Amino acid sequence: MNTQHDDRANLEPCVIGVDYGTLSGRAVVVRVADGAELAVAEHPYTHAVLDRRLPDGTPLPTDWALQVPADYIDVLRTAVPEALARSGVRPDQVIGIGTDFTACTVLPVLADGTPLCELPGLTGRPHAYVKLWRHHAAQAQADRITALADARKEPWLQRYGGKISSEWEFAKALQLLEEDPELYELTDRWIEAADWIVWRLSGSYVRNACTAGYKGQLQDGSYPSADYLAALNPGFAGFATDKLEQPIGQLGDRAGGLTAEAAAWTGLPEGIAVCVGNVDAHVTAPAATAVEPGRMVAIMGTSTCHVMSSNQWAEVPGMCGVVEGGILPGLWGYEAGQSGVGDIFGWFVRTGFPASYAEEAAALGRDSHEHLTALAAEQRVGEHGLIALDWQSGNRSVLVDHDLSGVVVGLTLSTRPEDVYRALLEATAFGTRTIIEAFETAGVPVEELIIAGGLAKNALLMQIYADVTRLPLGVIDSAQGPALGAAMHAAVAAGAYPDIRTAAHAMGKARPAVYPPDPGRAAAYDRLYAEYRLLHDYFGRGANEVMHRLRRIRAQASA
Amino acid sequence: MNTQHDDRANLEPCVIGVDYGTLSGRAVVVRVADGAELAVAEHPYTHAVLDRRLPDGTPLPTDWALQVPADYIDVLRTAVPEALARSGVRPDQVIGIGTDFTACTVLPVLADGTPLCELPGLTGRPHAYVKLWRHHAAQAQADRITALADARKEPWLQRYGGKISSEWEFAKALQLLEEDPELYELTDRWIEAADWIVWRLSGSYVRNACTAGYKGQLQDGSYPSADYLAALNPGFAGFATDKLEQPIGQLGDRAGGLTAEAAAWTGLPEGIAVCVGNVDAHVTAPAATAVEPGRMVAIMGTSTCHVMSSNQWAEVPGMCGVVEGGILPGLWGYEAGQSGVGDIFGWFVRTGFPASYAEEAAALGRDSHEHLTALAAEQRVGEHGLIALDWQSGNRSVLVDHDLSGVVVGLTLSTRPEDVYRALLEATAFGTRTIIEAFETAGVPVEELIIAGGLAKNALLMQIYADVTRLPLGVIDSAQGPALGAAMHAAVAAGAYPDIRTAAHAMGKARPAVYPPDPGRAAAYDRLYAEYRLLHDYFGRGANEVMHRLRRIRAQASA
Repeated sequence: MNTQHDDRANLEPCVIGVDYGTLSGRAVVVRVADGAELAVAEHPYTHAVLDRRLPDGTPLPTDWALQVPADYIDVLRTAVPEALARSGVRPDQVIGIGTDFTACTVLPVLADGTPLCELPGLTGRPHAYVKLWRHHAAQAQADRITALADARKEPWLQRYGGKISSEWEFAKALQLLEEDPELYELTDRWIEAADWIVWRLSGSYVRNACTAGYKGQLQDGSYPSADYLAALNPGFAGFATDKLEQPIGQLGDRAGGLTAEAAAWTGLPEGIAVCVGNVDAHVTAPAATAVEPGRMVAIMGTSTCHVMSSNQWAEVPGMCGVVEGGILPGLWGYEAGQSGVGDIFGWFVRTGFPASYAEEAAALGRDSHEHLTALAAEQRVGEHGLIALDWQSGNRSVLVDHDLSGVVVGLTLSTRPEDVYRALLEATAFGTRTIIEAFETAGVPVEELIIAGGLAKNALLMQIYADVTRLPLGVIDSAQGPALGAAMHAAVAAGAYPDIRTAAHAMGKARPAVYPPDPGRAAAYDRLYAEYRLLHDYFGRGANEVMHRLRRIRAQASA
Repeated sequence: MNTQHDDRANLEPCVIGVDYGTLSGRAVVVRVADGAELAVAEHPYTHAVLDRRLPDGTPLPTDWALQVPADYIDVLRTAVPEALARSGVRPDQVIGIGTDFTACTVLPVLADGTPLCELPGLTGRPHAYVKLWRHHAAQAQADRITALADARKEPWLQRYGGKISSEWEFAKALQLLEEDPELYELTDRWIEAADWIVWRLSGSYVRNACTAGYKGQLQDGSYPSADYLAALNPGFAGFATDKLEQPIGQLGDRAGGLTAEAAAWTGLPEGIAVCVGNVDAHVTAPAATAVEPGRMVAIMGTSTCHVMSSNQWAEVPGMCGVVEGGILPGLWGYEAGQSGVGDIFGWFVRTGFPASYAEEAAALGRDSHEHLTALAAEQRVGEHGLIALDWQSGNRSVLVDHDLSGVVVGLTLSTRPEDVYRALLEATAFGTRTIIEAFETAGVPVEELIIAGGLAKNALLMQIYADVTRLPLGVIDSAQGPALGAAMHAAVAAGAYPDIRTAAHAMGKARPAVYPPDPGRAAAYDRLYAEYRLLHDYFGRGANEVMHRLRRIRAQASA
């Protein structure tokens, strides 16, 4: 086996994909010819997420989430050589390396790329660290950014569903300016971690088109104007020109050659292609072969991210962002999302799974999700008599309102945990259908849905999505979708393929139409979906602002 | 102690109250002078509730619930002598006996009172037995009764909130006629168990004003007309005149003297006063001292029954019934109800109490309700951010719609079981406030709320009711409210007091205003109640019929 493996590997060029997740990085060795994943290795970040205190003990306020950039380098030092060793591939077979990152994960650095948190005397300053995507302490700044853009009718606002997130570059930078102006002054570049790691690998700072557009509001070649920024805060006027402005690299471009230093970390040959940075969700689209218009990829985990490319621009209400070249060079990349999906199922199991069920599940050797799924699968559509709204974590698309909350309607004394569980699975499917219909109404057809991410393994959930959306449901055929996508981009950067589309045809992996919609169940779901939409619009579009009022009451009561 | 007890008891006259519940009968020995409860004894019915098969094995369809009348006699034979023996009271001190019963619990008997199920050859016929209050298999008949009355604008319909229940005398009798016409023919009297037991004790069939009005639609001296009944079913035309019509006894009236046979069963003196029958909820009102207009008693258990007397008649929308002399002779008795209260809390604990909570509760020596209540009590009003509708078992008042269902709004990923539990407690309080406001809007003021029943022991729940209703909340000071009320009526029947009002002042037991409303919390609850009412009217008054549609979809999917 090992000999045969080595033989095959010896013959063919390979690429490395590195996926930087929230808690760890994974490296995968991929054969260029067909995308075969030869080996994988994972390295957890030593400092994980700093959300209570800095490494020196400095406490952090609530809603903060930081990371330590040196942890990212450790992934290159450990996971890459380990994956390579496991694969049996010789270093000189490797022709390129690509990466993807969580986003917007952003840090302040000096002109040479040195993170401020690595400077002597600044290790105790929270604002010197990487702000992770889920750092939510800049909400006040985000609200002002949106309100001012709305008041001034800034043209870029419509590209983001009318709302700028607290997770993005401007909100986090404005928080830095207003809370630690001294560090803001020291910051030469405000850089996405996705680009910083490529800088470390290649020696070049190239800003990737994806995060620049989705997280940095770069639209049609321009950032928000100095005039607008000055109105937010006079000290912020020069932010875009001074700290963001940088040549843009398209996805799949070569950022540079691997430096001697990075070659030493990784054990890879100096000078091989280092690809421009990318984002975990977006990079998964070509890995799942979604390189033509109409093929939507849903990356389903704790939340869901929907990505799709199109050759036309349209204003799709409630999208997270529309960016030219944001997923594939030359196409408009659309991103939409559901802020709670697996998180909702997890919450339900944590809070609504009775002891008697736990015992039964244990006796059957099932975990709680498997047990509830098996019980829910015995039901016919509509048998539980419930409709839920999937807003326990707010609504990202199409309502763009994180102050909404979850609802369950139809409870009776005979409602069981598996009934509510199934209603929650269905609610998230209705949420996806709502997004798909928003695309179609705006003239952007969705013809196929391909699922990636951890939830793809739940066959009941997959079938529900197929039945609810009436779309043939494909599933990515890789457990390392993002890393595979990063490796494909590396192959393009190395010149092995002329573009991502060609690479995706050769290396991408999806099983198409694994779950075809069932006409009978689809018709039954149409009736439930109509109820969902009625409640969706009632609670979500202003007819009854009870959720906003409850949130205010709750905040006052907790104060 | 025992000697002293005997000494006191020897000096004074006593009465016996017997409370016939769903699963057992309880006898209590009460001192006439001050209502002191000297001893109690309970006897469970041998056949409990027949809801799967008859004693001979004959299977029963779903929704049936029958009882065996001989079980009621056994209570007289065992619980009464046992209570008497425990009390140290001598039989010759006992001057009267009173009873109360579940209702509408009704049976077919011969002209001499013999239950059909006791006739040879009929023991295998389901319709020969007592139909318990919660026998729900006559829904089709009830629907026709309501629809026809509505179409014909029968004047009595408005006295019952516009809807006649499947639990009541006419629906159950019509089911008998249509499903077993031979037994219907054999039936000389269709009699409430409340009156049947008094007939066994006194030798006289006196129909009590309470069940005749609330369950037999006797209004202003008349039953529904023969014309109306014939339109329901030609064979039903003579039902009221042939099988119901009987002299009415007011509550507290003497039905007759204890027969020799009943004296032998009970060990009580022959000839002592036997009081006219009564209903468990209604008899509790004077036991809780609620004999003046404006004092509402809520009997809170699995469901809640609200009873209140008034010297004025008003059409209060959504009441269960308004009956002259239905609670106190000479006053209009109002009954309202919530079909799910303790049942909802029980359902939640059964389905939403996680294993980790069960372990914590066990470690603290609390049962599940105690544990959730203790956790919920730590919160401030509105802190959980939730609003629930308490319709898991439908809505009895004021919407009179059993096809409604429960709702929870405001769920987030940080919502915990104690949050939902508290929201459910509050939802039932909002339901009670809705009923109280319906009374007040109709010009029937409610000035005080007195709680009886098992839920009165939950101090958090009681305080929530006080804060939500802004009424001083009293609590009955007896664990045997219905039996005490029955005993008080016996004292009146025996001539010890001129009327129930006087008896209630001497013998009734309530601690007034135990839970005064807190102005701050009451103000906070006003905001939440406004949200409840908005959702109540949206889901309950036709704006969105989603609950009815979900129920139909559910029925079709389950078929």
